[in-house]
This record gives sequence, structure tokens and C-alpha cells, in this order.
Amino acid sequence: MPILKEELFQELLDNDNTKSSNKITIVGIGAVGMAAAFSILTQNVSSDVALVDIFEDKLKGELMDLQHGSNFLKNAKISASSDLAVSAGSRLIVVTAGVRQKEGESRLNLVQRNVDVMKTIIPKLVEYSPETTLLIVSNPCDILTYVAWKLSGLPKNRVIGSGTNLDSSRFRFLLAQRLKIAPTSMHGWIIGEHGDSSVPVWSGVNVAGVCLRDFNPNIGKEDDSENWNQCHDEVVNAAYEVIKLKGYTSWAIGLSISDIASAFLCNTNSVKAVSTLVKGIHGIDKEVFLSLPCVVNSNGISSIVIQKLSADELKKLQASANLIDEIQKGIKF
Amino acid sequence: MPILKEELFQELLDNDNTKSSNKITIVGIGAVGMAAAFSILTQNVSSDVALVDIFEDKLKGELMDLQHGSNFLKNAKISASSDLAVSAGSRLIVVTAGVRQKEGESRLNLVQRNVDVMKTIIPKLVEYSPETTLLIVSNPCDILTYVAWKLSGLPKNRVIGSGTNLDSSRFRFLLAQRLKIAPTSMHGWIIGEHGDSSVPVWSGVNVAGVCLRDFNPNIGKEDDSENWNQCHDEVVNAAYEVIKLKGYTSWAIGLSISDIASAFLCNTNSVKAVSTLVKGIHGIDKEVFLSLPCVVNSNGISSIVIQKLSADELKKLQASANLIDEIQKGIKF
Amino acid sequence: MPILKEELFQELLDNDNTKSSNKITIVGIGAVGMAAAFSILTQNVSSDVALVDIFEDKLKGELMDLQHGSNFLKNAKISASSDLAVSAGSRLIVVTAGVRQKEGESRLNLVQRNVDVMKTIIPKLVEYSPETTLLIVSNPCDILTYVAWKLSGLPKNRVIGSGTNLDSSRFRFLLAQRLKIAPTSMHGWIIGEHGDSSVPVWSGVNVAGVCLRDFNPNIGKEDDSENWNQCHDEVVNAAYEVIKLKGYTSWAIGLSISDIASAFLCNTNSVKAVSTLVKGIHGIDKEVFLSLPCVVNSNGISSIVIQKLSADELKKLQASANLIDEIQKGIKF
Amino acid sequence: MPILKEELFQELLDNDNTKSSNKITIVGIGAVGMAAAFSILTQNVSSDVALVDIFEDKLKGELMDLQHGSNFLKNAKISASSDLAVSAGSRLIVVTAGVRQKEGESRLNLVQRNVDVMKTIIPKLVEYSPETTLLIVSNPCDILTYVAWKLSGLPKNRVIGSGTNLDSSRFRFLLAQRLKIAPTSMHGWIIGEHGDSSVPVWSGVNVAGVCLRDFNPNIGKEDDSENWNQCHDEVVNAAYEVIKLKGYTSWAIGLSISDIASAFLCNTNSVKAVSTLVKGIHGIDKEVFLSLPCVVNSNGISSIVIQKLSADELKKLQASANLIDEIQKGIKF
Repeated sequence: MPILKEELFQELLDNDNTKSSNKITIVGIGAVGMAAAFSILTQNVSSDVALVDIFEDKLKGELMDLQHGSNFLKNAKISASSDLAVSAGSRLIVVTAGVRQKEGESRLNLVQRNVDVMKTIIPKLVEYSPETTLLIVSNPCDILTYVAWKLSGLPKNRVIGSGTNLDSSRFRFLLAQRLKIAPTSMHGWIIGEHGDSSVPVWSGVNVAGVCLRDFNPNIGKEDDSENWNQCHDEVVNAAYEVIKLKGYTSWAIGLSISDIASAFLCNTNSVKAVSTLVKGIHGIDKEVFLSLPCVVNSNGISSIVIQKLSADELKKLQASANLIDEIQKGIKF
Repeated sequence: MPILKEELFQELLDNDNTKSSNKITIVGIGAVGMAAAFSILTQNVSSDVALVDIFEDKLKGELMDLQHGSNFLKNAKISASSDLAVSAGSRLIVVTAGVRQKEGESRLNLVQRNVDVMKTIIPKLVEYSPETTLLIVSNPCDILTYVAWKLSGLPKNRVIGSGTNLDSSRFRFLLAQRLKIAPTSMHGWIIGEHGDSSVPVWSGVNVAGVCLRDFNPNIGKEDDSENWNQCHDEVVNAAYEVIKLKGYTSWAIGLSISDIASAFLCNTNSVKAVSTLVKGIHGIDKEVFLSLPCVVNSNGISSIVIQKLSADELKKLQASANLIDEIQKGIKF
Repeated sequence: MPILKEELFQELLDNDNTKSSNKITIVGIGAVGMAAAFSILTQNVSSDVALVDIFEDKLKGELMDLQHGSNFLKNAKISASSDLAVSAGSRLIVVTAGVRQKEGESRLNLVQRNVDVMKTIIPKLVEYSPETTLLIVSNPCDILTYVAWKLSGLPKNRVIGSGTNLDSSRFRFLLAQRLKIAPTSMHGWIIGEHGDSSVPVWSGVNVAGVCLRDFNPNIGKEDDSENWNQCHDEVVNAAYEVIKLKGYTSWAIGLSISDIASAFLCNTNSVKAVSTLVKGIHGIDKEVFLSLPCVVNSNGISSIVIQKLSADELKKLQASANLIDEIQKGIKF
Repeated sequence: MPILKEELFQELLDNDNTKSSNKITIVGIGAVGMAAAFSILTQNVSSDVALVDIFEDKLKGELMDLQHGSNFLKNAKISASSDLAVSAGSRLIVVTAGVRQKEGESRLNLVQRNVDVMKTIIPKLVEYSPETTLLIVSNPCDILTYVAWKLSGLPKNRVIGSGTNLDSSRFRFLLAQRLKIAPTSMHGWIIGEHGDSSVPVWSGVNVAGVCLRDFNPNIGKEDDSENWNQCHDEVVNAAYEVIKLKGYTSWAIGLSISDIASAFLCNTNSVKAVSTLVKGIHGIDKEVFLSLPCVVNSNGISSIVIQKLSADELKKLQASANLIDEIQKGIKF
């Protein structure tokens, strides 16, 4: 009996090797990686998503679950493998893989263990996709972005840390909620280290170009009667709080990744707070990555916006840089 | 010192009680409920989503995690509470709540326990949103949709079971993969019970209006040398397989819910396989809900497509109906 | 012979009168009205669009042309009629109708002729949709928004002029082009009269919260060596230039309307520069409409952002207000 | 005084030559070309659109009008020039350019004049974008797609005619309207020549896999009491009718182009009715292009669906092929 497929179709090409131009690979399919994959697919950022992880059962389960919905996802191609070869030809590779802190483990020890993870994947990823750009999400984000840059041999513009894009989004939501306006109409930037020592740039917080500081000169300071700095405190505590309540963070970081990926693939020149090599900027003399507002396009990061920072903000940034540099010195590559 | 908000804004309205016209409440925030919420938000199906659950910590965690990303979600309003009052004014209420089967528990016992859950929520939900439409996702889906209909007092068109919309999506993906075409270009319908006894309607499986049966008269039968029925077997096993591999299903059912919600809110008259009261159709004489292709619009289900079924397909549907009816007889309302 | 439709479907409802919750009517289907309709449909802002015009042939042609593409437009419902009854039940009514200036005609005479157009449509529109909100696009926009407010009897928050939302978009594009960044990352506001006497608020022009004025104190002034004010000059000339080159403006104003409509229907509380009643603000003592940054939600305009304006900016705004008031005094209602 | 841009930004790259991976060039900016450009931009199909035309004023006007709205268009890059060099690096080139029939002009004469247009542009377009795919929209579409294929030297899979994708969309809308369902739930295909001699394949017309012919064996024939063939008659007359009413067609063809472009750029393997080389299929022995259901992916057309056609349908297709072949013989290359 003839084969149905051969009867139903007349092929035009002997070899129909199609090639996507917007392929994204996500390494690590925990809650963060999967929220990123799902955001990217539902927001139509890429039509070709590959998943990589070492847990083959979970990987196959996630693959099937996404594929079963591809009818509702504009027919995106979704693939998965524990073999990094599945990432070949990626425009962007999102790295969410990493180990978690053990009880009593020193921060440096944790860093070293995650550096060891990076050493097993980054060089191979770049081998399979020599033209790729890396987006590092694993924590500690700023240090691991530096590590990925070192290990990859890629130019600095093509290694991005997801950094404080998420912190800034949380900040805007919390500020906006106070003023009862849309988060996207609330402008505010958090820079520096992704995490406890992040720096809110109060001088630039504004609505429709109106700086809140013009109404309240103490905004963000200790002696502010309206205690606006609570918004930054809540940002710093946000991850801890969400983890305490639901066990992990996923949706907001997934959306943040999708947002950066979209700016990159659509070549928009959007300004986003992402982690980049900051040596020589704002008086930082160490070779470290920290988040600053960056222009993101298809080259990765094309330039950095130089904000007018206060002495106090500069001091905090430099302290973060020094601390990170100390940790980096202890890393064994 | 003057209050910043009062200086920054001139209010036009004393009382700015805004009202959304596309509010969706999701009851039950397990993996399914959250995947549904996230699909609805990222696909811009609703700009006002309320979450309800009894686990207050997890609820708050999920709420915060979504809100932290609302900057990337077109500023959707997201709320959550363990109090059903948060659902007030919903256009659509998606019910994913329910208990799981215990070891050694009879099916009827499981059903009764879930009926008891429905009894605590359905009447109150309808009280808070008398004009709402219910979309029941909890399993066993067809029976619980019937139960929700009974408990709600709503007209039959306004109580929908998510049913085989998902099974049909899985079926199309698996068929499409064999033919190397897009799932949305692969047409095929699975009807009947959502689950083990679902019925694939092979006579209607087609690409561009070309019925696959015209090439292979045995398609879907046991003596088909290409074994196309494997696609249906895989659909039936899909949930089991995914649960075995990753622990639960989420993405595909979340997208299926978002798909039905979109047809409803956008009043599209799209045809979807959803669970509806089928008494009097296809020789079914029991008051049961089963999935058939239905026209979905802002009235819920406005009409049912009467497929030309084979004797065998009719027999299977009727057997499902009888089995469900038997179970329903044992339910204590 | 039986009727196919009756055999194919089993109806659940005797009377399937569906009701959209996001209906938009567009009055006037010239280039502006049609670009608005097409933007709203392709950007999925509404799934129910009605067109109204007096030219029945063109109206039918546009209706058919859109309907022929509804397969690609998420099945939106599109209707059209020269009878205003087609607008019944609209959440938002966009008015683009109006006559053009005749050679040698005074501005006041033109205004009066357009007031006469408004008199024939506004009261009837409000009769058919008493809960509606009006978005006035016809020129002179600020005056006709005032006229529509007077004629409609609607509260001030529910009558919006499209105003300088478009001017601000042009401004951001032109500034962004100079800095090679995305227009959405370029923040700047043009307020006041939509047209020749619009006021750019240079103090608030910023990138990532960094005011350009902090680098260049003369920005926007005559003695600015980089001549940034050219960007505002080009905004003022934009409509004239585009009309000279292609005969009319359409795409950008269509997108601006879709943008405002989306904020309104999705109840986002986004801040947009739209025309609103400004009496009592910025020292304006006349009952006139001018554009200021406004919080837009499902109530229309819920509040106005009070920018810190310079003496010069205030003077320009007040002059516009006085000029408009003079013209309004001559209007015969 | 220092240059603001240099102070505001720290550049990471000396030479920030970004490269889009989804560039689309549209040649010809009449109503069709502009509706296509606007559909592609508003539906986010491409983030890099170039326009080409010989009328420089109109070109600049359209460019400015689109750019002024780029703030609302996800920051898409839009360029325009009368120099074909602007198209360099295009993934897809949409050709809508062409002259119109003069009064009393023979069809062959019109064809020759449009062939002369193609001769001036196709070779240069391919020179600037050797890896491109061509989508020919100009009429007579099937002949000019053949001409573009000959002139371009591209493999047959990379030269596509927009063909009956639009006719099929119109057909589905008209059928769907009769049944009160969503156009996307109404399946039907029109194949063959784009225009008067197009062929509706009634055997495949179905809802949810239910062939309408199973209810009404005469559907599409002259002796059908419900006169369903009126839907095809209206499709054939649609362009004439719309042109009579509004002067030209634009929206539906623009959306059809955007639909094909999306399948191509997203590499979806969607099945679309587009014009392709049909020699050797359905008994056609001439080297002509006609529309058949085709699998569209990033290779252009990868295969053709072989429908089961009736003797009458085959005859009509072959007659179209012969007629087109006759005209093609008279063309001077």
C-alpha cells in the first residue's frame, strides 16, 4: 500500500532543511527556565525554542507539554535534549542552569560550584553557535555573567546578564501601585548588583517627565515622611518573600527574560537595565559586570547610558564592584 | 508636608471605581490554574485576572510574582484572595480546583469529594457574578461540569467543560508531526469523554480539505499498516506520560483554557471541542455532558455541530454517556 | 430538501443575541478613520468595530474589504452603516468626521461648519450608547472636543480629545533618531494645543531618567548649539509636510487612536497626552480643552498629571487657552 | 560645548552595524503595498520594513507617517528609497508594483508592460539580496510570478505568488457568514488562477471535519436549491465590487500578504493557497504558476498538497494553465 504522506504531498525540495533566524536555547528547565520558555512562546518572541537540561525525564515531560499546546502557539518549533548539540544555530542562549546554596555553604564555595557548571556548558554552547549572544540568568548573576564572558571568548557586547531588569520592573510596579497608575507609565531604574546591594536611582524616578523628587526632596531617604524607600526595600526582599511564599520565583523573571530577548531579536535599541562590563564607568576600576541602563539591539549591548549619579550612589556602586572583584579573584577557572 | 500623590495629580472623579469588562477569575492555583492565568495574561486575553485559592501563602506568592511582571504584561490588573468576593463581576470563571485520587480510592468516592468542593464554591461564585459563564477544568471534567451546571442554576449554554479541546490539540500536533506540517493546518477532532474513552473522528481528519481516509481507508483502524491510530493512543496516554515525566500537566491545558476564554470574550463564534449537555444528540438519552464541536461566543455555547458519526463512534459516545450517567446517579448533592 | 444549516447545527439558544463588551464605533471613514479601524483590528484592541459615514458606497467598500480579511483578524465582527443606530452599545466612539477648510475660509467659519456636523451626530450617538466614552479626533481637535462635551451632556472624564498623543509620539521618534535609541525608550511630552502652538516640555525630556537638560542646559532654546528644538519644529510641521507629500496623514494618527482606545478598554491607568478640560489648572481660567498628561482608564480620564512648567511654558499654555476661548465664544450651538 | 549624545552614552562598539534577520522589502507603495506594510508592522511580522517606489514624494510621506507611529509599533525600523539598494539583505521581498490596464488595451499588452517593469527590478533585487524569497502580488499574479521566477534565477520554491490565499479568505468569510460561525472555523479552498477562473473545491468545504457536501450533495452546483455557489460568485466579483465602491482594494490583500510573510518568517509549515509552479501536477503539462494548497516555511514553498479533484475541477485547472501558457508564449523577455 502506498505511503499516505507521499501521496498527499508533492515535494519541491529533496532536502527541506529549514533554518530559523530567531532560535533561542534555554539551558536549565527549572521554574525560571520554563517560565522564560513559556513567556517567549506565548509572547511570540521566537518561533524556535530549544530546551537543554540534564534531567531527561523532566525534559521530555516539559517538551511534550509544550508541544501539546503548539496548536495554540502559532506553530512554534520546540525541541529538547540533554545534548548541547540541540542548541546549534541559536541566535540567543539563555542560561538559567546552576546549583543552589547548601546549608552552611560559603558564598564563594557556591560561586565556584556554579563556575564549574559554566565550564561544562559555555565553551560547548559557543562551539555549536559561534555567532550567538549569551543571556545569563543564573545567580549570582553579575559574577556568572563575567564568568560566562571569560569562558566564552565572546566580545563583551554579546554577553548580557539579566541583572536588574527584573528589579526595575518590581520597583515600577510598587511605585505605580502607590500612585494608582500603570507600571509602564511609572519610570524608575534600579542599577548595580542584582540582589541585596542594588541601587535605586531616585533622582530619575518620574511620571510623564515629572521627577518625584521635585515634589519631595527627601524621596528615597531615611527622613522621608512618606517612606518611599519602602518600595526599594520591598524590591530587595521580593525574591526572598516570593520564595518563602511559593517556593521559588518564576513568572516575573520569565517575563523579564522574554523582554530582553525581544529587544535583542527585534533589534529595537530599547534601553534596559542589564548587567554589562562596567570597568571605566562611574569610577569603577575593576573588571566586573553590573547592571546599568543599556541600549539593547541585535549586537547585544551597543552602548551604556551614563546616568548622573549622586556621591552616595557612586559609592554604593563602587563598593559592589569591589566586593564582586574580591569574590572573582577566588574563582578557579 | 503635602502628600506627593495629591500634588502630582489633579483628580477628575471623586470616586474612581473602574470596572473591567473582561474580568476572569481562576479558582484553584495549582500548576493548571497558574498556567491558565499566565497564558491569559501573556496572550492578552484579559486585562483583569483574579486568583482564588485556600492556600493563602502560595496565593500571595503567585500574586506577587505575577504583579512583579505586570510591567511586561500590558499593565494587567491582577488580584488574589482566599475570599470568593474577589471574583465579583467576572465575565468568566475558570474552575481548576479539586482534590486528587487517594490510593485505593474508588472513582465514585473521588467524584463525591470533588462534588463537595464544588458545593462550597459554585453557588457563591454565581452569587458574586450572576451574569458569569463557568469554564470547568477540574477532573473528571465532564461530570464536574454537569455538577457545576446543577449547582449554579445557570442556563446550559453558560456552563462549559474544557473537555477535549486539549485532546484535539494533542491529536493535531501528533498527526501534524507525521506529515511535517503546522498543527494549525492539521484538522482533526476528538470528542466524547475527556480522558480514556475519548473518540477520534477519523472520517473528518484532513489537510486542506483532503480527508486522509480518502488515501487510506483503514486509517484509525486496527488493520492500518501505517498505524495512524497510534496518534490517538498517544493522546489518551499523554496526561499519564507527562505526569510520569514531570509530575503534572500544565502548559498545554493552560493554553487550551486561554484559547476557550479568548473565543468567549472576543465573541468569535469559533468552533471548539468543549463539554456541553448532549442529551438528545447522537442518540444519547442521558442528562450528561460530553465534548462535541461547539460554537463558542459571548453567550458561552450557542450551538453544537452535528458530525456524521459512524455506528462505532456513536456506540462509543453512548457508552461513555451511560457510564457517566451511572456515576452521576451516585452523587449526593 | 432540509436546510443545511439546520442539519449541521443544534442550537442551544432560541435567540442568540450576543453582546460585545469592547465595541468601538468609528464615525468618519476617511484616511484617518480607516487607519484607526485597521490599527484597532490588527492590534486586537477590539473584536467589534462599527463604521459610520454618509458616503454609502465607500462605506460598503471599506466594510467588504475589511470583512474579506477577517479570517486574518481573529474573527472580529465588523459592521457599517450610514445609520447611527449601528453604533448602539459602543464602549468607545471615535469621531473623525468633519469638513475641510475651504480656500479663503476663516478659521471660525470652519469651526462653525464642523460644530454643525457635531450637532447632527453627537446627541444621537449618546442616545444609542448612553454609557459610551467619546474620543474626538476631528480638527481643530481641542475645540471640537469641547463642543462634543457640551453637546453630549457626558461628564468631562468621558469626553477625550486625541490631542497631542500623536505630537508626543512624533517628538519621541525624532529625538530617538538623534540618539539612535528606541522611540519607546525616549521620553518626552508635548502638551497644549494639538497643532501649531503645541508646547514641548523640555525639562522632562529624558532617557532612563536622565534629563537631557542636565547635559545641555540650553536644550530647546534658541541659543542651543545642537539645535534640539528642531525636533519640535519638525513635529509642528509634520502634518503639513506629510500632507504635502502624500496628500493626507493616516498611519500615525490611526495608531495613536488605537493606543488611546487600548488604554481605555484595558483599563490600564496609562498616562497619555490627551485633550481634557483644563480650567483651574496651570493658571488657566477658561473653560477649554487642552492636552496634558492624563491617566486613562475605563472611566476615560481619571486624573491629570500636574507637570512643573516654566513661566514660559505656562504663558504659552494660557495664551492657547485664551485664543481657543475666543473662538469658542463665536460658536453657535 | 560637548556633544550631548557622546556624554549620555558610552559606546561598546566602534561600529554598531546591526543586522535584522526578518527584513521585508515592499516594492510598490500604492494602496496594496501600504496596507501590506501596515499589516506587517501592526501584526509584528517583521521589525525591519523597507519601502521602494519611484514616486519619491509619496514615498517620503508614507515613510514619515509610519515613522511617526513607530512609538506604537514596537520600535520597528522603517526605511524607504527609490533606490533598490535599500532592499539589501531582505529575507522576503513583496512585489506589488505594476501598471494598470489602459482603456482598450489588450490583456497581453498589459502583461508585457508589467513584464517590462519586472525586468527593471527583479534582477537588481536578487543582486542586493541573493538569499531572498520573492512574493509576487502584482496582477496578473500567476503570470507575473512565472516571469519573476524566470528573471530571478531563483529556485522555484523561493518564488511565491500571493494567488488565491485572498480568494480563499473571502470564500471562508462568505460561507461562515451563512452559517454564523467564525471565518477561521470555516474551511474551504479556492485554487487555480487568482481571478475570474478560480476554482472552489467544494468537496473539501467543511466545519469541524464535517463536509457540507455530506448534507447537500449538490452544493456548489447549478441545481443547488440553497445556491451556495453564490459564495464563489461573490468571491470572483469581490475585487470588482470593492474597486467600484471604494476605488481600490487594500486591507484584505494587505492582510493576506502579512499572513503569508508570517508563515515564511516563522517557518511554520502552514498550508496556504499560493501560486507555485504546477507543471506535472493535476495533469498540467505547461510551465505555469497556479495556486494550490502549499506548505510554506522558511524555504518558501516546501511541498504541495495534492487534493482529490473532480473531473470538472481538473478540466478547469488545465484550461487555466493552457490559457496562461498561451499568454506567456507572447511575452518578450
